[in-house]
Amino acid sequence: MTQTAAYDDENIFAKILSGSMPCHKIYEDDDTFAFMDIMPRGTGHCLVIPKARARNILDIDPADLAKVMETVQKLSRAVMRAFDADGVSIQQANEAAGGQVVFHLHVHIIPRFDGVKLGPPASVMEEPEILKANAEKIQAALAG
Amino acid sequence: MTQTAAYDDENIFAKILSGSMPCHKIYEDDDTFAFMDIMPRGTGHCLVIPKARARNILDIDPADLAKVMETVQKLSRAVMRAFDADGVSIQQANEAAGGQVVFHLHVHIIPRFDGVKLGPPASVMEEPEILKANAEKIQAALAG
Repeated sequence: MTQTAAYDDENIFAKILSGSMPCHKIYEDDDTFAFMDIMPRGTGHCLVIPKARARNILDIDPADLAKVMETVQKLSRAVMRAFDADGVSIQQANEAAGGQVVFHLHVHIIPRFDGVKLGPPASVMEEPEILKANAEKIQAALAG
Repeated sequence: MTQTAAYDDENIFAKILSGSMPCHKIYEDDDTFAFMDIMPRGTGHCLVIPKARARNILDIDPADLAKVMETVQKLSRAVMRAFDADGVSIQQANEAAGGQVVFHLHVHIIPRFDGVKLGPPASVMEEPEILKANAEKIQAALAG
């Protein structure tokens, strides 16, 4: 494979950005948006996406990628504090073979805890109240 | 955990950067360095590191992180071409609980192929001739 497919405006993260699909929002700035993963692989698993139309790392503008990573860093630090985590795993999937399911670039931020393995991807839908509470914890850590 | 430990100048990636430890080098610019992972989780698995002294995403300067990601993008595109890959997985581990083993920030770039699962982390040492050949393939794709 040498070229990626075109950006699909109907992907669910585009709908979250446009507000036509709900999410548990954590953070937003001019270039990026962050919200809870609804099928978390661990407590506090969240996602950062660019507002720019980018399918994945193969087509994103490097300046947009830099903005995404700035937010990823902010949230990584925030989840460490919010959940008293021992570490954080960052993952980013490109194309179906790379594990990508939603075709708008997204970076996974997964708080990690000593002795706790990473859960399987996209397996169990989390309760909305828990996602809401965790989003609020991360927001408090960002503000603190 | 709210603070990361200090940078350890004796970590093996610092030694690779200083030239006191060998590696299968792929790419270098003013701010970043890329080389083959000696225990690949798939064909063409390589690593990008900053030249700056950074333990992980929790302490790196955002400008250095942006440079790292620019190189990660270049190499992601290159491995797609070099190995005719179907996708690419990007992973970055922070602190031991997050899967970090070497405490100099590094980003994993793992070419992916339809129907081929990701191998386990750090399990089998690859043959030097294969690492050398794969580094050359990626260099050719970068130049092409």
